[in-house]
Amino acid sequence: MTKLETFDNPHPYRDYEIIHINNEFTSLCPKTGLPDFGTITLKYIPDKLCIELKSLKYYYLEYRNRGIFYEDVTNQILNDLVEVCHPRYMEVVSEWSIRGGMNSKIIAKYQA
Amino acid sequence: MTKLETFDNPHPYRDYEIIHINNEFTSLCPKTGLPDFGTITLKYIPDKLCIELKSLKYYYLEYRNRGIFYEDVTNQILNDLVEVCHPRYMEVVSEWSIRGGMNSKIIAKYQA
Amino acid sequence: MTKLETFDNPHPYRDYEIIHINNEFTSLCPKTGLPDFGTITLKYIPDKLCIELKSLKYYYLEYRNRGIFYEDVTNQILNDLVEVCHPRYMEVVSEWSIRGGMNSKIIAKYQA
Amino acid sequence: MTKLETFDNPHPYRDYEIIHINNEFTSLCPKTGLPDFGTITLKYIPDKLCIELKSLKYYYLEYRNRGIFYEDVTNQILNDLVEVCHPRYMEVVSEWSIRGGMNSKIIAKYQA
Amino acid sequence: MTKLETFDNPHPYRDYEIIHINNEFTSLCPKTGLPDFGTITLKYIPDKLCIELKSLKYYYLEYRNRGIFYEDVTNQILNDLVEVCHPRYMEVVSEWSIRGGMNSKIIAKYQA
Amino acid sequence: MTKLETFDNPHPYRDYEIIHINNEFTSLCPKTGLPDFGTITLKYIPDKLCIELKSLKYYYLEYRNRGIFYEDVTNQILNDLVEVCHPRYMEVVSEWSIRGGMNSKIIAKYQA
Amino acid sequence: MTKLETFDNPHPYRDYEIIHINNEFTSLCPKTGLPDFGTITLKYIPDKLCIELKSLKYYYLEYRNRGIFYEDVTNQILNDLVEVCHPRYMEVVSEWSIRGGMNSKIIAKYQA
Amino acid sequence: MTKLETFDNPHPYRDYEIIHINNEFTSLCPKTGLPDFGTITLKYIPDKLCIELKSLKYYYLEYRNRGIFYEDVTNQILNDLVEVCHPRYMEVVSEWSIRGGMNSKIIAKYQA
Amino acid sequence: MTKLETFDNPHPYRDYEIIHINNEFTSLCPKTGLPDFGTITLKYIPDKLCIELKSLKYYYLEYRNRGIFYEDVTNQILNDLVEVCHPRYMEVVSEWSIRGGMNSKIIAKYQA
Amino acid sequence: MTKLETFDNPHPYRDYEIIHINNEFTSLCPKTGLPDFGTITLKYIPDKLCIELKSLKYYYLEYRNRGIFYEDVTNQILNDLVEVCHPRYMEVVSEWSIRGGMNSKIIAKYQA
Repeated sequence: MTKLETFDNPHPYRDYEIIHINNEFTSLCPKTGLPDFGTITLKYIPDKLCIELKSLKYYYLEYRNRGIFYEDVTNQILNDLVEVCHPRYMEVVSEWSIRGGMNSKIIAKYQA
Repeated sequence: MTKLETFDNPHPYRDYEIIHINNEFTSLCPKTGLPDFGTITLKYIPDKLCIELKSLKYYYLEYRNRGIFYEDVTNQILNDLVEVCHPRYMEVVSEWSIRGGMNSKIIAKYQA
Repeated sequence: MTKLETFDNPHPYRDYEIIHINNEFTSLCPKTGLPDFGTITLKYIPDKLCIELKSLKYYYLEYRNRGIFYEDVTNQILNDLVEVCHPRYMEVVSEWSIRGGMNSKIIAKYQA
Repeated sequence: MTKLETFDNPHPYRDYEIIHINNEFTSLCPKTGLPDFGTITLKYIPDKLCIELKSLKYYYLEYRNRGIFYEDVTNQILNDLVEVCHPRYMEVVSEWSIRGGMNSKIIAKYQA
Repeated sequence: MTKLETFDNPHPYRDYEIIHINNEFTSLCPKTGLPDFGTITLKYIPDKLCIELKSLKYYYLEYRNRGIFYEDVTNQILNDLVEVCHPRYMEVVSEWSIRGGMNSKIIAKYQA
Repeated sequence: MTKLETFDNPHPYRDYEIIHINNEFTSLCPKTGLPDFGTITLKYIPDKLCIELKSLKYYYLEYRNRGIFYEDVTNQILNDLVEVCHPRYMEVVSEWSIRGGMNSKIIAKYQA
Repeated sequence: MTKLETFDNPHPYRDYEIIHINNEFTSLCPKTGLPDFGTITLKYIPDKLCIELKSLKYYYLEYRNRGIFYEDVTNQILNDLVEVCHPRYMEVVSEWSIRGGMNSKIIAKYQA
Repeated sequence: MTKLETFDNPHPYRDYEIIHINNEFTSLCPKTGLPDFGTITLKYIPDKLCIELKSLKYYYLEYRNRGIFYEDVTNQILNDLVEVCHPRYMEVVSEWSIRGGMNSKIIAKYQA
Repeated sequence: MTKLETFDNPHPYRDYEIIHINNEFTSLCPKTGLPDFGTITLKYIPDKLCIELKSLKYYYLEYRNRGIFYEDVTNQILNDLVEVCHPRYMEVVSEWSIRGGMNSKIIAKYQA
Repeated sequence: MTKLETFDNPHPYRDYEIIHINNEFTSLCPKTGLPDFGTITLKYIPDKLCIELKSLKYYYLEYRNRGIFYEDVTNQILNDLVEVCHPRYMEVVSEWSIRGGMNSKIIAKYQA
C-alpha cells in the first residue's frame, strides 16, 4: 500500500480546520465489477501532524481497481487517516454518482 | 410485497449516516388516479443492519401504480424501513412536483 | 369565503412536517390597487387534522382581487389556518417580487 | 380598454431593438376559470413610434380577470401592439407556469 | 387509445410556434421492464389545427406502463401528433435521466 | 432629511419578522468620490410600529450623493431605523460590489 | 463633458473584438427623477483607435445625476463612442433592473 | 476488444439525432500514468444501424486502464463508432477535468 | 513589509461583523514553485480599530511571489491581522483552486 | 522565453477542434503595476502540429510578472501560438476580472 505521509502541523497552538475535496474518486462495485464514481471530502483538525496532499492523492488512487461498498470505503478511509495523523477531529464524506436511479452519500466522523 | 433486504453493518462501532436519494419516485393520486412524481431522501444511522440498495429500489417501484397521499406514503416508507433494519435514527423526506400551482414536501423522523 | 377543508391526520402518533409552497400567490396593493405577486410557504406539524390541498388552493385564490398589505396577509393566513386545523406548530412565509427596487419577506410562526 | 400610448422614436435613423420583459403576467383559463401565470417578452424594432412603458404595463393588467387561451393572448398582444406603433419588426413570446405537468411557450413574430 | 383532440388554430394567417414541455414522462424499458423517466419537448407551427393540451397529457400517460425504446417512442410521438394536426412544422425532443452512467437525448423533426 | 414614516403594527401580539432587501443602494466613497454599489438587507421584529416601505426607499435614496464608509453607513442606517420604530429586534446587512478585487459585507444587529 | 480618451490600436492589421461590461451604470428617470440601474455592454472592432478604459468609466459616471430615457441613453452612448474612435463595428447593449414589474433591454449597432 | 453492438434503425425514413452523454469516462495519461476524467458526448444521425447503449457503455469502460492522449481518444472513438454503424453524421466531444490549471475539450465530426 | 493600516472603529459600542472577500489571492507552492490561486475571506468583529481596505489589498499582494503552504499562509494572515487590530473575534478562510484533482480549504479562528 | 513545444497531429486527415481553457492567467497592469486576473480560452484546428499542454502552461506563466494591456496580450498570444504550430484556424479569447467596475473581454481570430 502507498505510504500516507504527514508533516508537522505548523500551527499546533490553535484548533483550525483543513478540508481536501477530491471529486475524482473511483472504485469498483464488488457485486457487478462496474466502476463507481464519487467525491470524497476530508475535513479535520490537526493535532501534531498534517496529511501530505500528494500522498493523499496516491492513497485515493489505490481504490481505482478495488471492489468495495460505499459504506465500507468511507469508514476505511476515515480509519486509515486517523491512524496516520491522530487528528483532534476528522470527518469523511463520500457522495456517489447515480446508480439505479439513486444517489448515495455516507458521512463518518471521528472525535479524539 | 418485495422483500426489503439488509446486510450486516460493516462498522457498527461508530454512528455514521447513510443517505440514499431517489429522484425517480412515482405513485398515483388516490383521488384523480393521475401520477405524482417525487424525490425520496432516506437518511439513517444504521445499528446492526444496513438496507440493501437494489432491494430498496424495487421496494420504491411498488408504489408506481398505487394510489396513496403524500403524507401517507412518507410515513409508511419510514415505518417499513424502520421495521426492517431497526436503525439508531432514520428520516424520510419526500418532495413533490407541482400540482395545482403548489409544491409539497413531507419530513418524517424516527429516533430509536 | 371558501371553506378550508381538513382531513384526519393519518399518522398522529408522530411529529412530522408538512410543507406546501405556492409560488403563484397574488393580491392587490391597498394603496395603489396594483397587483402584488408572491410565494407563500406553509409549514406545519399536524395534530389531529391536516389541511386539504385543493381547498387551500381555493383559499389562496380569494386574495386575487383583495387589497391587503404584506404584513397583514401573512399573519391573517397564519391565523386562518391555525383556526382550521389546530396544528402543533405552524409557520407562514411570504416572499414578494420587487416593488420600488425592494424585495420583501414576512415570516410568522405559531407554537401550540 | 386602456389606451396604449406611444412616443416619437428619438433615433429613427437606425434599426435598434427594444425589449420589455414582464414576468408578472396573469390571465384566466377560459375552461376552468383558474388563473394562469406567465412571462411576456416583447421585442421590437421601432419605426416612427415607441411604446410608452407605463401604458404597456396597464395594458397587460387588463388581462388579469379575462379568460383567454395561451395561443390567443400571444397573438392578440402582437396584433394590438403592431397596430399601435407600426414597428419595423416585432416579436411576442409568452412562457407559462406548469399546468397539468406541462410548461407551454408561444412565439409569434411580425415583419413589416 | 386516448383520442388526441384538436381545436381550430385561432390565428392561421401567421406562422407562430407552440411549445409544450412535459417533464413528467415515464415509460418502461422493453429489455428490463424497469421505468425510464424523461422530458418530452414538443414544438410545432400549427396549420389549421392546434393540439388540445389536456388530451396531450392523457396521450403521454398511456406510455406509463408500456415497454418502448428511446428512439422509438420519440419518432412514434412525432408520427402520432403529425397525423392528428397536420402542422406546418413539428419537432419532438426527448431527454432521458441517467441509465448506466449515460444520459440520452433524441431529436426528431417533421417539415410539411 | 426625508422623514422615515411608520404605521401601527397590525399584529403586535406576535413576534414575526419583516425583511426588506434593497439591491439598488448607492453612495459615494469619501476618499475617492467614486460611487459604491450595494445591497441593504433590513430584517426586524416590529413592536408597536412598522416602517413604511416608500419612505424607506426615499430614506435610502438620500445616500446617493453622500460620501460615507461601509462600516459607517451600515451602523447609521441601523441607528436611524431603531430610533424611528423601536423594534424588538433589528439587523442591517450591507453587501458591496467589488472594489480593488474585494467584496465587503457588514452585519450590525440591535436587540431591544 | 469628460473627455473620452483613445490610444492607438496596437494590432490594426486584424479584426478583433473588444468588450467592456459595466454593471454599475446608473442614471435618473426623466419623468420621476428616481434612479435607474443598468448594465452597459460595449462591444467593438477597433480601427485605428481603442477607447481608454479609465476615461470610459468617467464618461459613464456623468450619467449618474442626469435624467434620460433607456432608448435615448443607449443610442447616445453609441453615437458618442463612434465619434471618438471611428470603429469598424460597434454595439451598445443596455439592460435595466425591474421597474413596474418589467425589465428592459436596448440593443443598438453601428457598422462602418 | 468488447464488441460494439448495433440494432436496426426503427425509423430510417427520417433524419433524426441520437445523443448519448457519458460523464463517467476515465482513461490514463500516457506520460504520467495518472487518471484523466472526462465527459464524452456522442451525437449521430443513424442510417441503417443504431448503436446499442449497453455495448457502448462497455466499449467506454475499456479505456479505464489505457494510456491515451485527449486528441487521440476522441478521434479513435469517432473512428470506431463510424466503422460499426455507418451513420449519416456523427460527432464526438470530449471534455476533461482540470489538469495543470487547464480544462481541455476536443470536438471531432464525421459527415457521410 | 507593507504596513497594514487601521482606522478608529466608528461604532465601538456595538459588536458588528466586517467581512472582506478577496478572490484574487495568489502565492507560490514552496515545493514546485508553481502558482497557487485562492480566495481569502476575512471576517472580524472590530474592537478599537478597523483594518484599512487598501492597505489590506497591498498586504495580500506581498504573497504573489512567495512560496508558502496553504495551512501556513492562512494562519499567518490571521496572526498578522490580529496583531495589527486586536479584534474581539477574527476568522480567516482560504479556498484554493484544484491541484492534483483536489480543492483545499483552511479555516482558522481567533477569539479575544 | 519558454520554448512552446509541439507534437505531430495524430489525426491530420480530419478538421477537428482542440480547446484549452486556463482560468488562472495573471499579468500586471502596465500603468499601475497591479495584477490582472483572467481566463484564456484557446481554440484551434491543428494542421501538422498540436501544442503540447505542459509547455503551454509554462508559456502562460511567463506573463505573471509582466506589464501588458488586455488588447496586447490577447493578440500576442495568438501570434506566438500561430507561429509555433501553423494551425488551420485559431482563436484566443481573454476574459478579465472586474477593474473599476468593468469586466473586459478580447476575442482575436486567425484563419490560415
